[in-house]
Amino acid sequence: MDLLNLLNWRYATKKFDPTRAVPEAAVERITEAVRLTASSSGLQPYQLLVVTNPELRERIRAVAWNQAQVTEASHLLVFAAWDNYTAERINRAFDLVNEQRGFRNEGWEAYRQQVLASYVPRDPEVNHAHAARQAYIGLGSALIAAAAEQVDATPMEGFDPAQVDEILGLKAEGLRSVILLPLGYRAAEGDWLVNLKKVRPARADFVSERC
Amino acid sequence: MDLLNLLNWRYATKKFDPTRAVPEAAVERITEAVRLTASSSGLQPYQLLVVTNPELRERIRAVAWNQAQVTEASHLLVFAAWDNYTAERINRAFDLVNEQRGFRNEGWEAYRQQVLASYVPRDPEVNHAHAARQAYIGLGSALIAAAAEQVDATPMEGFDPAQVDEILGLKAEGLRSVILLPLGYRAAEGDWLVNLKKVRPARADFVSERC
Repeated sequence: MDLLNLLNWRYATKKFDPTRAVPEAAVERITEAVRLTASSSGLQPYQLLVVTNPELRERIRAVAWNQAQVTEASHLLVFAAWDNYTAERINRAFDLVNEQRGFRNEGWEAYRQQVLASYVPRDPEVNHAHAARQAYIGLGSALIAAAAEQVDATPMEGFDPAQVDEILGLKAEGLRSVILLPLGYRAAEGDWLVNLKKVRPARADFVSERC
Repeated sequence: MDLLNLLNWRYATKKFDPTRAVPEAAVERITEAVRLTASSSGLQPYQLLVVTNPELRERIRAVAWNQAQVTEASHLLVFAAWDNYTAERINRAFDLVNEQRGFRNEGWEAYRQQVLASYVPRDPEVNHAHAARQAYIGLGSALIAAAAEQVDATPMEGFDPAQVDEILGLKAEGLRSVILLPLGYRAAEGDWLVNLKKVRPARADFVSERC
């Protein structure tokens, strides 16, 4: 697999083939790539929902500008970020590290206190915004992981998060939806974007050096 | 290249070998992966700075909790998101698509108007926050691209963005730093994290299905 080829291969699929489903093993590798992705302080402050239920997807489509990909792809990933950083959530993440590594470390415990002191009293909106950014790192992984499986994926911000949260019961779990990512296979016909050139800013307009 | 192996291989390197520099060709492939990454409406609302200048890196280190990676890695990537969405920036991105594809399309032009109408009047902080999220998708690509080159990389949010902006003259370019990413090679000794187990939430705590 050449990474740049994968990034060139993928595109925001507009028309999925509703007759082809992504194999569960591929979905598992894609979600696993997200799970293994880096996040700030290792808190991994989001969850990934894999929605295949047709009725739920119809309801989500209705609050997502009626975009067909929501129901025509075989799987709908929903990235749902923590609504806030709480002491319980932070402690659970730090405790997990201690459990998995089998020891407690002074530096790590001092860092825990620092994170608790700076995150817990902060405005929940600031905390959610920070958590949402971490979910976007995972989105970067998911897009590459899907391409590595030759699975098409369309990142979508065009939806009403509060309504998606309602449909999926996310509020009770302290989560807020931030991105939808349908997974499936491009249809043989009917996708206006598939044959158009991928456009990105020129390197000179995007990368600059300070030597 | 197996993507999950790459994600397992990488870690937030604490101690870089200051005697080893990443080859320019590898840096180019890593930054190219970011350039090719998806972003909302294809606006790619951020830039990537590659800082090798030692004096600039010393000054950045001083406003980044004195973290040694900033100067000991061979390259410092700085992700700098647009401070705002302006009509000029949006139009430039949409015009580029028309130029590159060689035609104008009614649907695309209607979408341009919709983006202009919703983004331009919006609070610049909301727009910057949205742009910053897009940079984090690029961070996801950069972490995988670095691993694919067997290059170590440490995402860092622990710095004073306003001061880094000042040091790099970003304000005048309408940019705000959001992430630092030193690139280099792990030192043979002195990294407390290198041999510790990577910890992530269990799949059952991170992925859930709605069938």
